[in-house]
This record gives sequence, structure tokens and C-alpha cells, in this order.
Amino acid sequence: MLDLVLPKGSLEAATLELFESADLAVSRSSSVDYRASIDDPRIDDVRILRPQEIPRYVAEGLFDLGITGRDWIEETGAEVVSLGELQYSKASARPIRMVVAVGGDSSVERVEDLPQGLRVSTEYPEVTRRFFEKKGIDADIRLSYGATEAKVPDIVDCIVEITETGRALRAAGLKVIDTILTSYTELIANPVAFQDPEKSHAMGQVHTLLAGALEARGKVLVKLNVAAEQLEEVVGLVPSLKAPTVNQLHHGGYAVETVVPKSEINVLIPKLKDHGATDIIEIPIAKIVH
Amino acid sequence: MLDLVLPKGSLEAATLELFESADLAVSRSSSVDYRASIDDPRIDDVRILRPQEIPRYVAEGLFDLGITGRDWIEETGAEVVSLGELQYSKASARPIRMVVAVGGDSSVERVEDLPQGLRVSTEYPEVTRRFFEKKGIDADIRLSYGATEAKVPDIVDCIVEITETGRALRAAGLKVIDTILTSYTELIANPVAFQDPEKSHAMGQVHTLLAGALEARGKVLVKLNVAAEQLEEVVGLVPSLKAPTVNQLHHGGYAVETVVPKSEINVLIPKLKDHGATDIIEIPIAKIVH
Amino acid sequence: MLDLVLPKGSLEAATLELFESADLAVSRSSSVDYRASIDDPRIDDVRILRPQEIPRYVAEGLFDLGITGRDWIEETGAEVVSLGELQYSKASARPIRMVVAVGGDSSVERVEDLPQGLRVSTEYPEVTRRFFEKKGIDADIRLSYGATEAKVPDIVDCIVEITETGRALRAAGLKVIDTILTSYTELIANPVAFQDPEKSHAMGQVHTLLAGALEARGKVLVKLNVAAEQLEEVVGLVPSLKAPTVNQLHHGGYAVETVVPKSEINVLIPKLKDHGATDIIEIPIAKIVH
Amino acid sequence: MLDLVLPKGSLEAATLELFESADLAVSRSSSVDYRASIDDPRIDDVRILRPQEIPRYVAEGLFDLGITGRDWIEETGAEVVSLGELQYSKASARPIRMVVAVGGDSSVERVEDLPQGLRVSTEYPEVTRRFFEKKGIDADIRLSYGATEAKVPDIVDCIVEITETGRALRAAGLKVIDTILTSYTELIANPVAFQDPEKSHAMGQVHTLLAGALEARGKVLVKLNVAAEQLEEVVGLVPSLKAPTVNQLHHGGYAVETVVPKSEINVLIPKLKDHGATDIIEIPIAKIVH
Amino acid sequence: MLDLVLPKGSLEAATLELFESADLAVSRSSSVDYRASIDDPRIDDVRILRPQEIPRYVAEGLFDLGITGRDWIEETGAEVVSLGELQYSKASARPIRMVVAVGGDSSVERVEDLPQGLRVSTEYPEVTRRFFEKKGIDADIRLSYGATEAKVPDIVDCIVEITETGRALRAAGLKVIDTILTSYTELIANPVAFQDPEKSHAMGQVHTLLAGALEARGKVLVKLNVAAEQLEEVVGLVPSLKAPTVNQLHHGGYAVETVVPKSEINVLIPKLKDHGATDIIEIPIAKIVH
Amino acid sequence: MLDLVLPKGSLEAATLELFESADLAVSRSSSVDYRASIDDPRIDDVRILRPQEIPRYVAEGLFDLGITGRDWIEETGAEVVSLGELQYSKASARPIRMVVAVGGDSSVERVEDLPQGLRVSTEYPEVTRRFFEKKGIDADIRLSYGATEAKVPDIVDCIVEITETGRALRAAGLKVIDTILTSYTELIANPVAFQDPEKSHAMGQVHTLLAGALEARGKVLVKLNVAAEQLEEVVGLVPSLKAPTVNQLHHGGYAVETVVPKSEINVLIPKLKDHGATDIIEIPIAKIVH
Repeated sequence: MLDLVLPKGSLEAATLELFESADLAVSRSSSVDYRASIDDPRIDDVRILRPQEIPRYVAEGLFDLGITGRDWIEETGAEVVSLGELQYSKASARPIRMVVAVGGDSSVERVEDLPQGLRVSTEYPEVTRRFFEKKGIDADIRLSYGATEAKVPDIVDCIVEITETGRALRAAGLKVIDTILTSYTELIANPVAFQDPEKSHAMGQVHTLLAGALEARGKVLVKLNVAAEQLEEVVGLVPSLKAPTVNQLHHGGYAVETVVPKSEINVLIPKLKDHGATDIIEIPIAKIVH
Repeated sequence: MLDLVLPKGSLEAATLELFESADLAVSRSSSVDYRASIDDPRIDDVRILRPQEIPRYVAEGLFDLGITGRDWIEETGAEVVSLGELQYSKASARPIRMVVAVGGDSSVERVEDLPQGLRVSTEYPEVTRRFFEKKGIDADIRLSYGATEAKVPDIVDCIVEITETGRALRAAGLKVIDTILTSYTELIANPVAFQDPEKSHAMGQVHTLLAGALEARGKVLVKLNVAAEQLEEVVGLVPSLKAPTVNQLHHGGYAVETVVPKSEINVLIPKLKDHGATDIIEIPIAKIVH
Repeated sequence: MLDLVLPKGSLEAATLELFESADLAVSRSSSVDYRASIDDPRIDDVRILRPQEIPRYVAEGLFDLGITGRDWIEETGAEVVSLGELQYSKASARPIRMVVAVGGDSSVERVEDLPQGLRVSTEYPEVTRRFFEKKGIDADIRLSYGATEAKVPDIVDCIVEITETGRALRAAGLKVIDTILTSYTELIANPVAFQDPEKSHAMGQVHTLLAGALEARGKVLVKLNVAAEQLEEVVGLVPSLKAPTVNQLHHGGYAVETVVPKSEINVLIPKLKDHGATDIIEIPIAKIVH
Repeated sequence: MLDLVLPKGSLEAATLELFESADLAVSRSSSVDYRASIDDPRIDDVRILRPQEIPRYVAEGLFDLGITGRDWIEETGAEVVSLGELQYSKASARPIRMVVAVGGDSSVERVEDLPQGLRVSTEYPEVTRRFFEKKGIDADIRLSYGATEAKVPDIVDCIVEITETGRALRAAGLKVIDTILTSYTELIANPVAFQDPEKSHAMGQVHTLLAGALEARGKVLVKLNVAAEQLEEVVGLVPSLKAPTVNQLHHGGYAVETVVPKSEINVLIPKLKDHGATDIIEIPIAKIVH
Repeated sequence: MLDLVLPKGSLEAATLELFESADLAVSRSSSVDYRASIDDPRIDDVRILRPQEIPRYVAEGLFDLGITGRDWIEETGAEVVSLGELQYSKASARPIRMVVAVGGDSSVERVEDLPQGLRVSTEYPEVTRRFFEKKGIDADIRLSYGATEAKVPDIVDCIVEITETGRALRAAGLKVIDTILTSYTELIANPVAFQDPEKSHAMGQVHTLLAGALEARGKVLVKLNVAAEQLEEVVGLVPSLKAPTVNQLHHGGYAVETVVPKSEINVLIPKLKDHGATDIIEIPIAKIVH
Repeated sequence: MLDLVLPKGSLEAATLELFESADLAVSRSSSVDYRASIDDPRIDDVRILRPQEIPRYVAEGLFDLGITGRDWIEETGAEVVSLGELQYSKASARPIRMVVAVGGDSSVERVEDLPQGLRVSTEYPEVTRRFFEKKGIDADIRLSYGATEAKVPDIVDCIVEITETGRALRAAGLKVIDTILTSYTELIANPVAFQDPEKSHAMGQVHTLLAGALEARGKVLVKLNVAAEQLEEVVGLVPSLKAPTVNQLHHGGYAVETVVPKSEINVLIPKLKDHGATDIIEIPIAKIVH
């Protein structure tokens, strides 16, 4: 029922892995194929195309649903509905930032210090144009085909570029003087399709599965046993997202089960043990839906 | 107590992985060794040999138990007992098919249209001979050492070849006109050893472990909480293989736990949520034995 | 609060993997960086240095806590406190042994048969010196920079070398005539830091997480259902480390859950099934803390 | 004296290899560095940037000399002087073609058959605009970010794309209906720098070295001996680019040496032997300058 | 004019490399393609098929010319004309041997010691049958599909197998008791085509190019200068295949040039220098035709 | 007649490649074997051992001839005869330097500024001890097992380490304040063996072959034709190592042939052409012996 478009290129492997873990595995006859399919009653057609072009295609109604970055939604100015962020990127769960950077030994510290008429290299000429216009700075914006960070200071005065950790910019001897926007991967929909109640319900279910798989990546299931007299104390230690599942055991005592962020486990498990929990085990989970 | 022979070559990696996941890990001093061992009281000796030769060795009693494809059991005509299919192959859970194929632009559409005296290339001369004999067609059968699909139409008129998806045949410009047999990997036993009650019991247990690991590959454990008033409705949604495990919780409501096919999860989880299930989590499982 | 030093080189990948599975993931800006960090309130600074030098640095107080092999603790004679063995090595859970080896066709069968003044090549000159001194044998000990096993018999008469399986020594045509020590990876602490109660408590918690992750590698969670009349029999079959968790089910019967060594599963599951257990499933676990 | 810019990306490895074989080896501190150097008195500064941007940078005088494809010279319309084609591309000595392609089952056979208002996807919007303008066809041209061939027929009606062998287009089910231009790699110069006699002389010498290395790839040196009476006949067989080098030998007879296209060797050597040449040897050459 | 068939599999890469160095480069659209072409007026069609099947196809006239091993010519008994050995194999210039091997601790030392009725595993049942028949030994010959050396002594008593260095057999604990034949790669022709004078001449030319490229692998061109008074002495040292090319130099003295086996260079160059040769240089050659 | 020892480890691949190009190819049964052989009448036994240990073994007479670095000859103080430098290292033709380095932000600029009692980490404790002793500085020298550059400033105050380009030291934030020695690979001999005239002659011949292969790496053969009237001018341009070989041609004019450093070719060829040379070709050479 839904036509779906996924991003080719740097986000491709991470996107296919996410759909696989959301039990929406994408089949292709080869890894360079642009056509694909998902064995799911809600999804008809699947195409894999450049993320830069996806906002336009979704806005034009060539697809109902698509995945791309916030950066390209802004650059194209395409009219799409965002169903929400999907917090993954090429290699991590962090967003990318679109920044303004100048040479590391430049005296410029703020965008406001940049001279009129400056030369700017960027893969995002539209966002860049709007940004400098708003700042009242006249900029000679040049479309970059890559290696943008190598062009300062000989070829341009500053660049507008995306970065995840800032490491590549620092390695090229640049310093960041402003952040234009923060960009996550997003699930976007065609506005007309989104008005259709049936399609909208299907989109929500797909979103639930994707978000459930993403959330599970940072969580584990913890199971433990505890004597009756320490039950409330142990239960009280557990992060309070939701009441843990507590079961009385046949042979006495209680079994407690709860989902916990992986990042808190290193602190939580020693604390639980100190307060009387026994037989603590940690189990990986594949999906979580509240 | 049992001597076991496993297939070398294209099925080798998948077979060793299956034994590992069945908690019957195969140890070898190097990956090219033909002798191996399994640390299990039921298994004495393990050898890794060509699948073509395994039916004969098991029939002759050189081994009690072996793994090979149905194609080679048929080709050799060896007298072995099949304990059942193990639904895995080199890269998927699908069987292979042994098909008759001709040139894509041939006018032949059915085996019955093939001319008397036709030249056939195949790695399975015995199955091919029996097949054409039954059809009343006189065939000049030539043993193929590989690249069988490249021989039509210059060298032979048709081929008998195995295929998993048909892609290699299509890529070679061939069309399939008949399927001789569908072949899964099978667990086979020597008929005399299979009469021995102790050996037979051990064979059954090995089969249980292998089948349990294979079945778990397509299943996940789903856990969820639900209020008392929605319990029966939610339980009713769960695929009916078996009653789910239901537990009354200490703080009220119920915890439900059930094993579900992975392929149904994409539909099931949104439905459970729509009907009031909360805290749904999905957990990978390593083995399932009914 | 704790400064930690981890081993660079052959143990490096296995150590980083252990910390990751213990929810103490080590971050580095690149895989060749010697500085690292762990996002944990108990750990300040992390360095990755040669295991040979780690005992000395921990003894001198440059670090509070370190990981290295028992072989280098012995060789350096450094004064450190061992918090316990961590049973992992480069590729397995087995320890390494430090052995005395001579040419395979030598008539020497015991260390006592070795002649006075013999030439010995070893990467462990101190342990070797102490060993031969205690035996009353005068040895010309030469520091080896590697390829130690290639030096018998032309360059030296015997070697003192570490080995995991003995395979490399046998391949070089040597035979082992004595074992000087068995060496596991150990978690070691600076004696002064270990006296500090707060640091000592933090060290114990880190140890708990590491040991919990290691123990989980060899264990799985088994869940099964059983009718009331077979409950005690089935529970009796389960390895007796700890009473299993037993739950009465809403629809009758019992659910039993227990953690079992993976190495016993191949025998246990068929036995449980033979005694009436149903719906047996096996689930991988990531950590276990008693 | 000359500032030089080389193409990053698909031509990069082949360009660096060409400079190496022309004895103008390019040094970089790492393979991802954009700055480089060549130890040559004629060359000052070397940068490695995107081929799309090189024509503009050379035209603006940021560099004296650059290497890029004819396609990007045309697309940018930059005012540069071409010193000549360098007949190499990513993987072969063949040029690329910029073609117009439509769906393989379209009834369109010529560009003239295309409808007004057609949608075109291309990475070369300027060349495409000029091409359709000249043909009198009104085209809705859309910038492609890659995977252009995957967009016919759902997203656009035709594409303008480069191809070396046409294989990728055929594999995508497209057919070529016109060729807009044929593009070799070219050595281009800034027009002002090219007026400078000293710079122009240096540019010519660099060109000579590059062309000499390229030409040598398709040539070999053939040496042979021949008796006096067959000398003229054998010399007459040799391809007539240039008179071969003939030497009278001390012990009688003649030694003949000549440079021959590798592609004619398979025919030439048997012919030479048939006509009395002996001791024919073929020697690889690294550079040839007429 | 000639249809040619080349061997797929272990000899494939070495064969394609030989044709490339013989200036008869084989083009294929992909490395798994069975059809190929050579841009040469003497060669029409090129196919790449299993070496086991090549003798039969050449004998039947499906191809005029083919490359395969002597082992398969013998096994098939096909009637073909051998144009000569091409001394290359998978990884070296050595031939393979077809040997009879038994268990390393067997008391059998000669084929004559083998018992009547022995079980033999081999990929060459016909050669094996003829061999044992001639020896008067009744053998139960079983077709091997690979891993032949692993079957002694449990599955068969001896094997007939090919080996290049004997290392794999020794590693499997076997000992060689006889050699049935020594097998080089050969260039074979269809007997009828070989009668055709034009085809026969073309075959000879192809053979010349292949043999010239093979011979050049073991040879180098040595050039040196020498004073008049030492000329004869130096010329006398050079291996006597052929008189060296001697040239009187413009500035006095002589230049000597000769082709020498690479394997003698290590001895020859120091000797030449000791006898007064100067400016000795060694140049690689690509082809040599006498 | 000579027993030879080659270095295992970082120099191993480059050493084996050098011997191969010197027509002294080293055969081993596997790439991890410590025993090898060379098919040469001057060389008996070949072993591949750690470069650190080679000076001692050659000095003790276990081998006649060895290859190792100057750094280890100095460190061990072994009494060996050096036959000369072989200018190659792991990846280039440059020597390595043994340097003293401190933290990049240290105020120390010269070794003389270092404080008494400073801690030094090094893999060369003997050279380091002698160096600081001569400077009158009391140093606490600690044997480093690797990662030496990571120990400044937390663990030691300075290091003595080898470096080829200095890049790794700079990347670790260190600065070099002195160079202790410059180290090439050397060919070393046992002093007693070197007294033996026959052995000494053989050592010289092996040295000639190795040096000839090394020298050829940086040279090419240039051949050109020139008219009589320009002969002397063109000959005058050629680097003056040695008179070029000049030949009068049968058809008039002269052929000139000379060996030229590759690094001068980029300048020489354009100059030769400017002065009337034609048909200039450049040919790679494999060995050169003056």
C-alpha cells in the first residue's frame, strides 16, 4: 500500500540493518540494485536512491514514505511531513551538524566577523544562501563536489559542511565558528498520503517497528531474584521508566525483570548486588515497544 | 558411540555453524582438516568428506550417521534411512531444485518436446538416466565437471542441473522446462545402526538438537504486559502454535510470554499494541524444542 | 577515580571485547591510539601499553589497576595485588603454559637430564634463571626477540617458551619436558591503592562486571514448561548450582527458568524432553552476577 | 614554477600511476591528503581536487595546469587551453562517452522522437541544456546526485549520462539513442600562464613526459638478428612509424631494433620468423619520446 | 579461423596470464564468463571450460585447439594431436605427477606388494584401471570427488592422485610408492583441423607466441662493454645457446649483448666482472623466439 | 659454502624481494618457516631470525654472513665485519635514524638541557647508556617492549627510538632533540670467515649481486638516435658516470645508449629532445654491475 524510498550511499548499510532488525528485511537481487522489496502487507514498492533527491520525490508523490537526513530536507525545501527522527547515522547514534568553518589560524571567531563578498564552498548552496542572507552577509557561494575542507584558505574563505565528530575538520586545520543546524535521519511522508487515514495508520505502524528496533539497541533485559524483605528496596533502585515485572516464586522470594539502558548497567548491577539481589542476568533484546 | 560424516565444500560452513548453534561444536586442528571431533558422549568419530560420497559410506556402514543432500542420495541410490530434512543450505533456508534447462530461445517448452538422441550434460548422470528413461526419451548423457550451464547450445542440447534461485541459469540465458526433484539437506543413518535401539535413541537426540537450533532461527520470544481485562483478547491474537505462558504479576496485571515466527512480528507487534499490550519486548532465541 | 592500564598487542582485541561486553566500552580516537577512555564514574584514565611493562607500572603507582598475564607478573617480580584471574586469552578461554622444550629427537626426557652450561633461549630470562637455579643447573640464558622455537638445536640446547596448545612447538619439531607455570590473564592492583577502601570497593565492582561478562560466555538461560506432576523430577535434572526459578502459570502447570553451562546443553535438553518438559527454549545471556 | 591540480576520485589512482611512470612521482603524506608535491624543478605546488571543479580553478588562475575530463570542461564552459588528450581513463585507454539513454522498451529511437517537456536526469545540466536547446526540445532537467540510470522510466523519461562500455546502461535496461560528446582526460592550462613563454615551455616538457609514458604502454622494443641477404626484406615487414635501428654485427649479419605496437606483435613475430629473423626478443619499455 | 578452448579452474589464472604475456590477451565481460575473445586474426571463438572435458571436445571437433593437462588427455583417451608441452602449472613451471600413495606406516613399499581386491580412490578411474590391469592387480576403483588423500586407510587402501610437490600427501601422512605419469599442460589440436595446412600454420604461430612468452620467463638480456683484448675471453664465458651479438663501439671497445638463463646469472655476472666486463646490465624480456 | 642469516620481521619482505631481484631467490616451504635455501653454489644454509640477534650469531660464527641493521650492530657491540650498506629499508631506500625525543611542549631543546636522573624508555638500552654516559648525564634507562613514543611524558621523560620519516613521533606529539646514529641495512660477516680467501671472494660476489640489484632500482636504460652533427652535443648532456655506448647505424646517424638515474629523467629527456635526440626510449633494468 505504501511506496517507500531509502537512501543510497553512506546511510545505506545502516538503513538496511535497521529495517532487518525491525523485522522489515529488505530483499534485493544484488547489493547494487536500486529496486528492492519488503515482505510486508503495508509496503508495496521499495526504491533505493540518493538522499539528496529523496525529499523532492516524496514531496512530488512519487513515493509515500522516505528516509533521508534533515540536512537535505532543509536544502531542498521540499514540502514533506516528518514522522520523526530515527536516531542513527552512518556509524553511530549521534546526529550530524552543519557548521561554518574557517582556517584554524584565522582571526575570525564568529560568523559576524566574516567580510562581505567572502567565497564559500558547500554542498548545500540553498541553506548557505538563506543563512548568510539572514546574517546580512553577501557571500559568493560555490557548489562543492567534495573535499570541501581542503579548499580553505587558498580557494575559498570559509566552508559550510556537515560533520559528525568534527575530527575531519580539525585534521584539515579548520575551526568551527557556527552551527547552522543539527540533522538526524528522519522518516518523511508525502502530505497527501499522510491525510489518507489508512496510509497514515500504516505509516505509524512502520514507524513503531523502526523506533522499537532502534530503542532496543541501547537497552537490555535484567532479571534477578530477591528475598521478600529486600524486594521493595531492590525495586526502588531500578530506573523508573516503568514498574518492573515482579513475580512470586514457587520456592519463595521474588523474580524481578526490567528493561534498563545499557549505559547504566555498569553502575546498576554492582548496586543491585550490594542491596541483596542475586542471580542477576542480563539478556540482549531485539525490539521494545511501549 | 556414533560415527558421523559431514559434508565438505559448499555446505561445510553452514553445517559447522548449525552444529555450533546446536551445542555440538565441531573441533578441527585446521579449517582444511578432514578429521574432527565433537565433545559429546553420543558421538565418537567425525569426518568431513565430499557430499557425493557420503550416501555410499553411510550405506556401507563406514559411518552411522551423515549429512548430505537429497540430490546425492538419489544419484547414488544408496540404501540409507533418512531421519528427516534439515532445512538449511549454503546461504538460505530454501531447498535446491534439480531442473531440466534448455536454451532461452529454444522452442522446447516441455521435456516431452525434446528430440530423441539429445545430448545432455549433468553432474547427476544416474538420476538423469532414470528420468529420461521414464519419459521414454533416448539421451546421450555426458558427465559434467562443472560450468554445466555454459554448454547449451553449442556443446549439448539441454542440461540437468541444481539451482537455488534460478538466477545463474537465467544469467546464462537458459530456461527451466521441468523440475526433477527438490532437495533439502538431510540427516541420514546406516540401516543396521538404526535398528540398534541405543544408537537409534542417540540419533534421535542429535536430531532434536539440530532441529531445535534450526527452528530457533526463525523464531523470537515476545514478552508483554497486559491488564486483566484485556488478557484474553491479547492472548487470542498470538499465533496458536501453543498456549502462551501467562503469569499474574505481583503489582497487578499479567505478563505474557510466547514464541512467535520472526516473519509475523512486523504485523503482530503493531496489532498487540493496538489491543492494549504494553512493554512489548522481543528477545532472540538460540534453540527451541517442543 | 581509578587509573587503568590495558595490554597492547595479542591480548588487545580480546580485552577490548571483554570490556565492551561488561558494559565498560573503551573509546579511542583510533585503533592505534595508546590513550583511551571509559564512560564510567569509577574510571578516570585509560592507557593501552605493552603487557610486559604493565606489572612494573602498576607496582610503581603509575596506574591503580591493570590487566596483564601471570607470566609477566612472575618475570618482572613486580609487587602487585592480584584481584583474580580473568579466564580469557587471545583466542580461547584456556590459559597459556610456560614450558621447557628440547629437540624432538633429543634423548633428554626431564629437566634433570639437561647438561650443565646448557644454552637456553627465552623471552623470560628472570623466570628462567630462577627455575634453573632451583634445579641446580647452570644455564647460559639468552634473551630471545622471537622465533624462539626455531633456535633448537643449532643455536641453543633448549628453550623456555609460552604455548597455548603446544601445536607451534610440535610443528617446530620440539618436545616439552616440563611446565614452569600456567598463566591466565589477571586483574592486578597497586598495593597502596588497594588499601584505600573507596578504591578497593570500585575495583571490586569493576571485577564483578568483567567476571560477569566472562561467565556469561559459557552459559545460557533455559526456559521450559512442565506439568505439576513432573515438576520435581524435571527440576531435579537441572545442574545444581542454584535453585531454578519456578513460576505457577495462569493456565496451569509451571514455568521453570534456569541458567545452565552451554557445554551441558547437548545432554541436558534431550534428557529434559525425555522427562516431560515441553516448550524448552534456550536464550543467550550477556552477563551473570551471582 | 607551475601550480598543478590533479583529479580526486575515480581518475585519481590512474593519474598518480601515470605521473609515477612519467618519472614525476607524486608524494603525499597519506592517500587521503589533498596536498602533494612532485620533486621536479618545473612544478611548485600540487593539489588534488574534484575533477568537476578543476576547469574553473584553472580558468581563474588558481592553478597553471590541471588534469580533468573533457566532460567537465564542457559542462563548466571554463576558459582554459587544452594541451592535448591523455588517453587513459579509470581502467583502460578508452574514452568515455556522454550519451542520451531511454528505457529499453521505449519506442523512441532518436532524440528527435522525444516529446516536449520531457523530464531528464543528469549530472551535466549545462551540457544537457545546450544539447536540447539546439535540438529545439523543451526539457525539464533535474540534477542527479548519482544512480542516474535507475530513474528511468518512473522518475524521469530519459537521462544524459557518461559510460565507458555501455554495460551499466544495458544492465539497467536502458538503450542509448545519441552520443553528445566523447571525452578523454585532458591536460589543461590557464590562458594567461600559457602566454608566458617560460611557463609554456615547462608545460610542454611535462606534457612530453606524460605522453611518452602513455605511449610506451602500448609499445614494446623488438630486437632481432638477420643475415645480410634477408635484411631489407625483414626491415620492410616492420611497421613504418620510423626507420628501425640497424647495426652490423662483429661476427657478421645485422642486428635490428625497433619499437612496435604491442597489438601488432601477435602477427608480426610469426611473420618475422617466417622471413628469416632469428633470436627475436621483446622488451618492455617505460617511456618513448619521438 | 581457429576455435579455442581454455581450462577453467586451477589453471585458469595462469593460462590467462600466459596468453596476455604472449600478446594474445583474452577479453571477457566478467571473470566468471565462459565465453571470451582474443583480438587476433587467427582466432575466432574462445571458450573457457573444465580441463577434464577439453580433450573430448577437441577430439570431437567442437574446437580446433585447446589447452589442458596431460593427465586428462590420458584419462579420457581422446584422440587429439599434441602440439607440445607448455611448461607452466598453477603456481610454478614444474609438472604435476600422478602417483600411487598408501598410508605412511603401511608395510607396502612397491605397487607389486599391494593385495588383490584392494580399494582405490581416485579422480582418474580410467588411468587407474589401465595401470592396475597392466600390473595384474585386481582393484576396486572408486571415483573420488575430492579430498582423496583423506580416505586412507579407513575408507580405501590406496589412492591415485596428482601432486606437484608431494607436500599435501606427506601432510596427510601418506607415502608415494609409484609414479604413473608426469603431466605438463599441453596445447592440443583436433586431428582433422591439424591436417588443414592453413589451420596448421596458424596453430604453429600461436604455439610460437606462447612458447616465446614462456621461455622469456626464465631468461634475461645481459649487456656489457669489454675492451678489444678481452672480447674473446668474455664471449667465451657466455652460455653457448647461440653466438652473442657483438658491436664495435664508436669510442672503442665492444658492446656485447646476450640472452642468458636467469638461473645462471648469479654465477655468470661475478665471473664476467672478474674477466674484465664492465657496465654489465640485466634487462627483463617479455618474449623470445629463436 | 657460506651460511647465511636473514632478518625476520619488518625487513623480511624487503630482504626476500632484494634477493629475488639479485637472482638469489630464497625458497621456503612456507612464509613462516625459519629455514630456507638459495640455489647458489656459494650458499649452503639459510636461516631467517630476528635482526636483534643476528650480530651476535654472526660474531659467534654460527653464520658466515648476515643481514641486519646498523642499529642492532651498535646495540649488541658484536664483533663483525661490515661488507657495506645495502640501502633499503622496510618501505623505501632511506635509512632510519635513532633519535632522542621529548614532549613537544617541553622547554628542552638540546640533550644537554635534560635533567640528571631522567627516565628514558628505549628498545636500545646499550646504545642509550653509552650515549648518555658520554654526555655526562645520569639516566634511568628502561627497556621498552614497544609503543615507546606513547610513554612521554607520563611514564618517562624522554625516549630513544628509531624513525624513518619522523611522522610517528610528531603524531605522538614528540619533538626530536638529537640524532644518535643513522642506520642502514648492512651485509655483515664473521671476522674469521672473512679472513678465508675463498669465503671472502664468495662474499664479495654475493655483495656484487645484491648491490647490482639495488643500484638498478634507481636507474633506467635510455636509448636514442641522433644525427652525426649533434652527436657530441647530445652525448655531452648525458650524466657523466661513464661514457655512453655509441654505435654507428647502418642507415646513417648514431644510436646512443646509457644508464641514467631515474630521478634525473624528468629533466634529461626534455633536454635531449630539445637538442636533437629522436626516438628516445626508456627501458627498466634489473641489475647493474660496473
